[in-house]
Amino acid sequence: MSPAEASRPIGVFDSGVGGLTVVRALMERLPLESIVYFGDTARVPYGVKSVATIEHFTAQITDFLLQRDVKMLIIACNTMAAVAAEVVHRLARGIPVLDVIEAGARAAVSTSTGRRIGVIGTPTTINSNAYARRMHELDPSVRVYSQACPLFVPLVEEGWLDHPVTRLTAQEYLRPVLAEEVDSLVLGCTHYPLLKPLLRDVAGAGVRLIDSAVTTAELAAQRLQQEGLTRQGGAAADYRFVVSDVPLRFQTIGERFLGRSLGQVEKVDW
Amino acid sequence: MSPAEASRPIGVFDSGVGGLTVVRALMERLPLESIVYFGDTARVPYGVKSVATIEHFTAQITDFLLQRDVKMLIIACNTMAAVAAEVVHRLARGIPVLDVIEAGARAAVSTSTGRRIGVIGTPTTINSNAYARRMHELDPSVRVYSQACPLFVPLVEEGWLDHPVTRLTAQEYLRPVLAEEVDSLVLGCTHYPLLKPLLRDVAGAGVRLIDSAVTTAELAAQRLQQEGLTRQGGAAADYRFVVSDVPLRFQTIGERFLGRSLGQVEKVDW
Repeated sequence: MSPAEASRPIGVFDSGVGGLTVVRALMERLPLESIVYFGDTARVPYGVKSVATIEHFTAQITDFLLQRDVKMLIIACNTMAAVAAEVVHRLARGIPVLDVIEAGARAAVSTSTGRRIGVIGTPTTINSNAYARRMHELDPSVRVYSQACPLFVPLVEEGWLDHPVTRLTAQEYLRPVLAEEVDSLVLGCTHYPLLKPLLRDVAGAGVRLIDSAVTTAELAAQRLQQEGLTRQGGAAADYRFVVSDVPLRFQTIGERFLGRSLGQVEKVDW
Repeated sequence: MSPAEASRPIGVFDSGVGGLTVVRALMERLPLESIVYFGDTARVPYGVKSVATIEHFTAQITDFLLQRDVKMLIIACNTMAAVAAEVVHRLARGIPVLDVIEAGARAAVSTSTGRRIGVIGTPTTINSNAYARRMHELDPSVRVYSQACPLFVPLVEEGWLDHPVTRLTAQEYLRPVLAEEVDSLVLGCTHYPLLKPLLRDVAGAGVRLIDSAVTTAELAAQRLQQEGLTRQGGAAADYRFVVSDVPLRFQTIGERFLGRSLGQVEKVDW
């Protein structure tokens, strides 16, 4: 591959701001890579929508990022990865496609010592059974225990990251999963890394938390290497943030996820 | 007005299922009236979107209901009423337009004994200041204390209507408003009527709860009467439910709001 091809950006997308946790992990793991991020803030959240609607929105975003000449596509939204990954692969014209479910499932299976793995996510992700299916393909001996946690996203967006309400909610959601004595717990939603300290407390020291933002960045690094697409140097990496709406509190919430300033945000009208 | 004109349906719309609490109140107050309901379930929630986006979506829904030949339009969504009521009035071609904020503000001002009124709602509704503005127009002597409660919608949709997490959340949200010794509390979101028993408990017996679903149905009855549009009899009322998506758990959640079976639901593709 030529340096020009390697200097193209990585395209990362999500239904809203949650995927910025993946961007943050990518910036840390691959500081030379440019990134163009798309967040569908006008239509968020996807986790409560039908499969047909999610497929339609996903195709539209994929086309948009392909027009931006990306060298890799990362589905940083568990809901889209769970129900519409096929759509992205079909449209990608040979460009590598990664997603948070593939990354999280691989990491969980390769590090779980007791073969008992918990998964938490939005109702759509959990009902799709995508994590359990992928983990069973990778290792048929694992037992997977899943739990939908619909209140975690609004609690994170409220900023109640360490609040008695969030703790009580986490205790209630995690109770059935912890009763199965899981050794690992996959955070199957890009909002959940912000709850890591609280979830570590509630789950206890015996449970390893799998942060799919971190595992996705790791998988991206491997895949770029394999394809000879790793950028080797040159000008500073370029970061672009594109959204379909700039809602109230967007800057505050976005920067909480990204862990730094967003800079200028571009808005598209659909 | 001819009986044919009076037999046209009332058009009620919301960003999702919440407006079904208004439909429920209308069915009870005006059992002879037919209703066509539109819920924008593909793009819910509006409460976190920008004004420009909400105006655009509102215009699209208004056009759709006008094509269904409605005799009255009811904005059963506090967010749309707060930031996009003008759009509906402009497009309505003389058809009466009512909204939940107008109804709630009127009811609060006319029944408040101490002139100290609390309002709770989504962040967009509260930040718009629409309730406070309308109440001050109706009576400049009232003092209005507002509080955004972003977690109430997801808590209602989770079905935690009487749950320790919801109680703790309500105590936290209502604390500053109750400290102002309000005598009335406007439930400024169509999801909140489902929390009435819990909110009555948290607020205490000294605070009168204003349910804007009930007050909207009352205002609709008065307005139909004034305009000579009240339907007098004939075949049973016809109820139509139209949505932009049929998401997971839609039937369950919808029927919780409506208090009865939804029957057949029609989906439009936009």
